Amino acid sequence: RTLLVRKRWVARWLVCLFTGVGTALVATVIEVSIEHATEFKFNVLRKLINWCDSGTCMALPMLAWIAVNAVLVFLGSLLVTYMEPQAAGSGIPQIKCYLNGVKIPGLLTVRALLAKAVGVILSVVGGLACGKEGPMIHSGAIVAAGISQGRSRLFKKDFKIFEYLRSDTERRDFVSGGAAAGVSAAFGAPVGGVLFSLEEGASFWNQSLTWRIVFASMVATFTVNIILSAIHGHASDLSNPGLISFGRFSHITYEAIEIPLFLVMAVIGGLLGATFNGINGKLTVFRKKFIKRKWLKVLEAVLVACLSAVMAFVLIFTVDDCVENSEGHETDHSHMNCPDGQHNIMSSIFLKTPEASLISILHGKNEDYNMLTLGIFSVMYFMLACWTYGLSVSSGIFIPSLLTGAVWGRLFGMAVIQLFPESIGDKDLGKYALIGAACHLGGTVRMTISLTVILLECTGDITFGLPIVMVLIIAKWVGDLFNTGLYDMHIQMMGIPLLPWEPPEMSYDITAKQVMNSPVLTLNTTEKVSRIVDVLENMPHLHSGFPVVEKAPTDGEASPSSSETPSLESFGRCKGLILRSQLCLLIKHKVFSAANGDLVRVSASLPASADKEVRLEHFRDAYSQDIPSVNLEISEAEKDCCIDLQPYMNPSPFTVTMTASLPRMFRLFRGLGLRHLIVNNDKNEVVGMVTRKDIAKFRQNAKVGKIQVQELQIRQE
Amino acid sequence: RTLLVRKRWVARWLVCLFTGVGTALVATVIEVSIEHATEFKFNVLRKLINWCDSGTCMALPMLAWIAVNAVLVFLGSLLVTYMEPQAAGSGIPQIKCYLNGVKIPGLLTVRALLAKAVGVILSVVGGLACGKEGPMIHSGAIVAAGISQGRSRLFKKDFKIFEYLRSDTERRDFVSGGAAAGVSAAFGAPVGGVLFSLEEGASFWNQSLTWRIVFASMVATFTVNIILSAIHGHASDLSNPGLISFGRFSHITYEAIEIPLFLVMAVIGGLLGATFNGINGKLTVFRKKFIKRKWLKVLEAVLVACLSAVMAFVLIFTVDDCVENSEGHETDHSHMNCPDGQHNIMSSIFLKTPEASLISILHGKNEDYNMLTLGIFSVMYFMLACWTYGLSVSSGIFIPSLLTGAVWGRLFGMAVIQLFPESIGDKDLGKYALIGAACHLGGTVRMTISLTVILLECTGDITFGLPIVMVLIIAKWVGDLFNTGLYDMHIQMMGIPLLPWEPPEMSYDITAKQVMNSPVLTLNTTEKVSRIVDVLENMPHLHSGFPVVEKAPTDGEASPSSSETPSLESFGRCKGLILRSQLCLLIKHKVFSAANGDLVRVSASLPASADKEVRLEHFRDAYSQDIPSVNLEISEAEKDCCIDLQPYMNPSPFTVTMTASLPRMFRLFRGLGLRHLIVNNDKNEVVGMVTRKDIAKFRQNAKVGKIQVQELQIRQE
Repeated sequence: RTLLVRKRWVARWLVCLFTGVGTALVATVIEVSIEHATEFKFNVLRKLINWCDSGTCMALPMLAWIAVNAVLVFLGSLLVTYMEPQAAGSGIPQIKCYLNGVKIPGLLTVRALLAKAVGVILSVVGGLACGKEGPMIHSGAIVAAGISQGRSRLFKKDFKIFEYLRSDTERRDFVSGGAAAGVSAAFGAPVGGVLFSLEEGASFWNQSLTWRIVFASMVATFTVNIILSAIHGHASDLSNPGLISFGRFSHITYEAIEIPLFLVMAVIGGLLGATFNGINGKLTVFRKKFIKRKWLKVLEAVLVACLSAVMAFVLIFTVDDCVENSEGHETDHSHMNCPDGQHNIMSSIFLKTPEASLISILHGKNEDYNMLTLGIFSVMYFMLACWTYGLSVSSGIFIPSLLTGAVWGRLFGMAVIQLFPESIGDKDLGKYALIGAACHLGGTVRMTISLTVILLECTGDITFGLPIVMVLIIAKWVGDLFNTGLYDMHIQMMGIPLLPWEPPEMSYDITAKQVMNSPVLTLNTTEKVSRIVDVLENMPHLHSGFPVVEKAPTDGEASPSSSETPSLESFGRCKGLILRSQLCLLIKHKVFSAANGDLVRVSASLPASADKEVRLEHFRDAYSQDIPSVNLEISEAEKDCCIDLQPYMNPSPFTVTMTASLPRMFRLFRGLGLRHLIVNNDKNEVVGMVTRKDIAKFRQNAKVGKIQVQELQIRQE
Repeated sequence: RTLLVRKRWVARWLVCLFTGVGTALVATVIEVSIEHATEFKFNVLRKLINWCDSGTCMALPMLAWIAVNAVLVFLGSLLVTYMEPQAAGSGIPQIKCYLNGVKIPGLLTVRALLAKAVGVILSVVGGLACGKEGPMIHSGAIVAAGISQGRSRLFKKDFKIFEYLRSDTERRDFVSGGAAAGVSAAFGAPVGGVLFSLEEGASFWNQSLTWRIVFASMVATFTVNIILSAIHGHASDLSNPGLISFGRFSHITYEAIEIPLFLVMAVIGGLLGATFNGINGKLTVFRKKFIKRKWLKVLEAVLVACLSAVMAFVLIFTVDDCVENSEGHETDHSHMNCPDGQHNIMSSIFLKTPEASLISILHGKNEDYNMLTLGIFSVMYFMLACWTYGLSVSSGIFIPSLLTGAVWGRLFGMAVIQLFPESIGDKDLGKYALIGAACHLGGTVRMTISLTVILLECTGDITFGLPIVMVLIIAKWVGDLFNTGLYDMHIQMMGIPLLPWEPPEMSYDITAKQVMNSPVLTLNTTEKVSRIVDVLENMPHLHSGFPVVEKAPTDGEASPSSSETPSLESFGRCKGLILRSQLCLLIKHKVFSAANGDLVRVSASLPASADKEVRLEHFRDAYSQDIPSVNLEISEAEKDCCIDLQPYMNPSPFTVTMTASLPRMFRLFRGLGLRHLIVNNDKNEVVGMVTRKDIAKFRQNAKVGKIQVQELQIRQE
């Protein structure tokens, strides 16, 4: 056993190493593909536009632009919609759910990885208002799940490695490491990545797991670093930590007088974010109702792609915003409809990936932008991003939010300077763009702590730490007055029983008695095969675990207890808990005994000396397969046999009494990752069961006047 | 109730704001005092040394140095030893224990704050090999506890504010925020501070608490920033985030070829750290045996102070290491016994605070140091630091560890250059000093994740992220082969039942039955006053909580149950749990009823309409007072009365059955912060109690060959 512990220890570290490297590879492939394809696309377009100086022939570049976008997004949407619908969107909500303990089929497959990675390249190059960060995080999670399990159902291949890591818990741990590596690779924010996993996944601080997550994150950051350095031809320079970086803000500082301005921006960010979520929520409801067919989903995506191109084109040519080329300016701006020696601002925003636009907005010179352009752009892009999120394509919301925020932040800064020209000394508006980006993102996804740290790490300097934290907190408060964060909203709309971080405030008077399911299906310690088969076949989705009980020896003795609690039926004394999957295995391997108690092993699938180790191995192999609708070939003779469940069941399951409060049960579920909780009366007799869903449906509903507890509708599977 | 929730919410944020500011104030006072006092001391000494060119009159500066050190340390030690012994050492182990759930009397008092803050100034200025960071963290924790509770026992003052925050849990939450603020102020590492609290304190991720901790940390960093900027005369420059910063390493990079060298350094660091801990452990045992008297403790501190001065003096004058003054070199080096135009290296290390020495070692030029000086210094300082830690003074181990490591790291780098002059080009040796510092600290305190992030934040750049994480992990592994981390070692020696992060690996076959205490002292749901008084008076320290049970109505009915489990006595059906402090209150307020069940309120201390609110308030007031050896003035008549415990007890305490494994109980204690766990048989009858100590005494003992579980001796209070 000591050997096994050591082997497992080594294997865990190895998996983390490979996860870091693998995630970084996926992320760099995405990054480099997007970079080159976008450059190619915009070079062609720029040439086309410059070739046609003006007039009617402008239709040609416009049509070309639309066609390119439409084709790319069509392919991307096709891939996602028909190959793996779980690859749609950013993937962060789904990863949150998985880490929270909810199983989502198809989420962590090689198929999803392909759809996600290729899909996001097509979406971003296709000109949609979306980013690639969410998909990178999802990819990291898949890489980790794949490596740790050493097998793939798509390839029907079992590599027979790391077999001792095959359990739900281990897999979940590795997925949290993979998600961290994804964050780390996408943003160059290893500490942010670690916090992301901790916040979303770790129900309890696990020191050695956290170390491995730190390690995977660091490895991912530095693999990205090394690959990108090598590609850009300066392999020895290790100062380029990740994919996104907002660039250094260390030369900019701020004054105390600006803090109130930042707070005003935070309120604006909260309001805009709430608006965004509100509109997107309505849109999602609309989609659920009317856009159900797959081809309609693809059509919608293509429509949005065309619209994005048209809008960009129209804005570039209708907004009159030519400015002088400043010295040392990048030469890739086409002059568009501007005179020589000038360039078009709108085109310098639009003819780029959203990410590159973000960096120019953050670090551009003040004179490079005018208020009209920024104003129109921010409104249009806001609408576009809102429509884009939720399409059946692989797309992230981070970059569009940051970009919208940065644009209105810069606009805000310009307005402030116009209003109070002398009181603000340092005129660099980059800081307003930064704060605006933080506010908008905070108002939209309701910044979690990990995202705060990600932003801090992206700016590469602690200088803006306090303002960023403050505006994130305030944007969240303001937004929370109206609705919930974007990710949580989508999770709720999917009807997934996600447990929030804390129990609702006012739920102390809700007790287990009210929450529990009763009657409960229980099994006896020695149960007849026919009954078990019946339970497995006829109650396919009731629960995935059953209490094992011992009925009171005679009915006569049981009656006094029922007289004390007359309203509640009890189902026998609680002895343990057995999982559905364990029952399937017991049936499959036919570990039966005759009704008289002698062990009858009908099948040869178990060696005669079936010791516990062998059985454990079988349990392990089975764990991750979806529990089959067991094609139980049980003869009539066998049906009369019995199974002694006691050696297999969990003999000390978590239980509560009927008086336990909701917060108490909540902490058990969330803190210990439970899926079932048996409710006993004070004689240790089973009276009910509480599942994750029963707990998750109670949500705090903080209206302005009063805090109340709300009961959500949860999807019945 | 909604109002109360909102009030509490506002109060919590306010407390965090004040905690951040308060901690920053304390930290800057410590910092500025040390800075000025040290400067003054060394200026005087330098003048004395320069005045006496050489020869016998050197005795004068030497004696002056010894005298100054001795006096300062004498005062510091006096303060700590006689005023508040809990202020000794760095305070981090004690804070760890407190956050882990162990109460340490006197730890969080104003008295301790004074002793700690003034003590650390005296120790550092007194020339001991110690730092001020640990004490700053402890100070932050005290500030938070003080502000949140709004009263002080030292001043016998109750400010009547934040009364609704007076509970054990709230206080613990705020202390974790205060500790984070302390880290943040001491190192300029707000994210590191947050991770410190999470790692040591938060048994479970609590989102809104974590937000408040982030906020407190940020406020602390920026308050320090603003104050220091103002003191140094450039108030608008907000680029100076905290007290310690190792300075930027962004201009230095490393090559792949250097990674193996770093790993070798990690192994050395682990070995040196283990040696340090081993020697310090032996020393601590010696101290426990022979240095028990208070005056002996003070004497030892003074002795070490004198020795430090003598050693510095002797080294400066015997090691022949004059080097040319480089251009632009700081002018505060005295030439000592060197010719004009040169300065003495040893003096440039010694005539500073350890912190300033650390920064020069990290950022000095290669030609400023020679191998002989570094070698001798590192050995001597290692011994000195080892002797210093554990003295009865307020002192931290961070800076001495980092300094020792930096010195041997630089030495290692010089040796590498000498051995392989061409493969490593003319490189800046600062990075070797940095890695050495990390290795040594990692080997000594066995770096936790928070400390990793602190180091990352201190270097101000992510470039060295991966090497630092790698060497920390390896130094920890190497060190762990020999002994445990310095803090944990001291905690174990104090006999404190600290629960580690995870249960011992091989403990699945240890069950509640083996661990529990039996027989258990139980109370009936309606208990006689005389019995309660008896329990309170005669079992003063047995448990702080008692199961409340309902005895089986007749003995006849109880017998069949005992026949099933013949070996175990049962103590009645479990109904709830009541705390010792609650019992004291009930007695104090005389909530008695006559034996026949009528309520008799003998005392007038409760209003006639004693509703639950009033009682809750009393419970709140009492919580933090050490439970008095209740001077229960109970008349004989009252003793015949009864108390109905049911309205006051916790009606659904956590329970396990006898078959529950140690890891399961461990997770309950650690994850949910329990103090008592009732063990029931399968009829819900109490058979035993498990306390924190019973769980904490099982430790994993990983010898090289085999992993085993060890039972520790825990101090009996």
